[in-house]
Amino acid sequence: MTTRKMILDVDTGVDDAMAITYALADPNVELIGILSSFGNIEADRAAANALKLLQLYQCPQVPVFIGRANPLDHQYQRIAVNAQIHGENGIGDVNLPAATAQIAKQNGVDFLIDTAQKYGEQLCVVTTGPMTNLAAAFAKDPVAIRKIGNITVMGGALTVPGNVTPVAEANVEQDPVAANQLFTSDLKITMVGLDVTLRTLLTKQETSQWRTCNPTAGAKLADIVDFYIDVYDEIYPELGGCSLHDPLAVGVAIDPSFVTTIPLNLLVTTEHDAYYARTIGDKARLNEPTNLNVAVGVDRERYLNVFMKLFLDFLEKLN
Amino acid sequence: MTTRKMILDVDTGVDDAMAITYALADPNVELIGILSSFGNIEADRAAANALKLLQLYQCPQVPVFIGRANPLDHQYQRIAVNAQIHGENGIGDVNLPAATAQIAKQNGVDFLIDTAQKYGEQLCVVTTGPMTNLAAAFAKDPVAIRKIGNITVMGGALTVPGNVTPVAEANVEQDPVAANQLFTSDLKITMVGLDVTLRTLLTKQETSQWRTCNPTAGAKLADIVDFYIDVYDEIYPELGGCSLHDPLAVGVAIDPSFVTTIPLNLLVTTEHDAYYARTIGDKARLNEPTNLNVAVGVDRERYLNVFMKLFLDFLEKLN
Repeated sequence: MTTRKMILDVDTGVDDAMAITYALADPNVELIGILSSFGNIEADRAAANALKLLQLYQCPQVPVFIGRANPLDHQYQRIAVNAQIHGENGIGDVNLPAATAQIAKQNGVDFLIDTAQKYGEQLCVVTTGPMTNLAAAFAKDPVAIRKIGNITVMGGALTVPGNVTPVAEANVEQDPVAANQLFTSDLKITMVGLDVTLRTLLTKQETSQWRTCNPTAGAKLADIVDFYIDVYDEIYPELGGCSLHDPLAVGVAIDPSFVTTIPLNLLVTTEHDAYYARTIGDKARLNEPTNLNVAVGVDRERYLNVFMKLFLDFLEKLN
Repeated sequence: MTTRKMILDVDTGVDDAMAITYALADPNVELIGILSSFGNIEADRAAANALKLLQLYQCPQVPVFIGRANPLDHQYQRIAVNAQIHGENGIGDVNLPAATAQIAKQNGVDFLIDTAQKYGEQLCVVTTGPMTNLAAAFAKDPVAIRKIGNITVMGGALTVPGNVTPVAEANVEQDPVAANQLFTSDLKITMVGLDVTLRTLLTKQETSQWRTCNPTAGAKLADIVDFYIDVYDEIYPELGGCSLHDPLAVGVAIDPSFVTTIPLNLLVTTEHDAYYARTIGDKARLNEPTNLNVAVGVDRERYLNVFMKLFLDFLEKLN
């Protein structure tokens, strides 16, 4: 596996925090920047959370950019369930030490375009929040964005119900217009949605190993994720753990063999009815060449093993 | 390929007529009975249509049984769109010669159970209408029905919108309770839904070959299907032909390699809201062994070639 230059586009968020950890922990990844979006929390707070995590992990050299603060067609407003699931501060209401580094001055969307220009095929972009930044960048400079070698998005639900409504997944529901623009474009995209992320689960059995392995950073991460596990136990007792939504997307971007995919042309419904923000096959393009690969199966055991090994090795080295 | 003993459970219906033709035309199939259900038309008229087709094809020895006339939890009422799509008489308003054979006296559900007992693993059951008969048979004698070697259903829509509502496919929508009972049971089922049937299309270029090949039976079949093609051109101009819903299910039952499938535990929503009759992943069983294989991709070119060769050879021999 060759080293991948990766940009993470996050709305940090507990599982975004795990996605950042995964990207830093995997020796195959060179994390060249983090971009924030609104979603689980406001875009500026999402960026601040990312910066604190980088400080915790002694990686202050990774730049953090603030991206779009609002969906393409309406104003963002944080809803109560986001604070319930991710904590009021977005990272399980755990206090992390203040970061010494500053948020980068450049706008996140422009950073994305510049980096796509610079690295092209070598660049991998993983979005773990709404797809607004990527859609805005594509609208502004489609030629640059088309050069990106790998676009992997955590979002959508094709073969399982949504987590906001029976058809809508949270990241897509935050900005269905952006998701629809990308899904119906000519960009090659891998969709890692609830179809697979609801199957990859983490419990306190795993997070307790982080505490043992590293009583500072490991314990802080465990505190953050345990908050999330407790909420999952309450809201989704049938699952038996918390979903590894965002870190699975990072894992798949690095090693696509974690999942099985189907090629399909999707659209996102943007009409404001019961089917709002649904990711579904585009009847008008059923027999046309496909631009999306949708993950529909996951080797969850192998993924969890790799995930845990990466996290433990990483936390061990931080000691 | 070994010869398969097949029961077809139909609501004849134009595409059911093609399903019957396919089963008779394929030398790998021994069609041991046709069972009718309500759906495109009332169950008794569906049976009468099947009997007339058997007469047209000089196959009066195949017995036809009437199955359940109503869904499990409500009364059937034929809706206008069924007459629009399939013609008032169910077979494109084409007049077929009266059948000399009679409808069998045994109830269709009991015939299904008896045949399952008798042939077990050798038996293949294909439903091209609502799943009511199969669900009723399974409720009455689960041991017998579990012996059936191959159950293939035309119904449902997982990765594409429905054709009754954005989430509901017609066969499932006719009796979601029956479909849900089967999908959440331990029966092994292959679902051939709109995911693949909307991609396999027939045009008048093909039906005209039937006329040339056989000016009596071939022309009658072409008349029936042309009615359907005209309706499709009006309702679904984006497709460019009529969907081979029911005959594709027969084809897949005989040769599963026509489609790619994903293993998934599905349920059917039976609440009377905007998501009524949706076929969707069962979140409570995401990580459990699966009983359904859902067709999500189709080799439409190869299928259409086989379909046409079978039909032309069959019609040729009838001359």
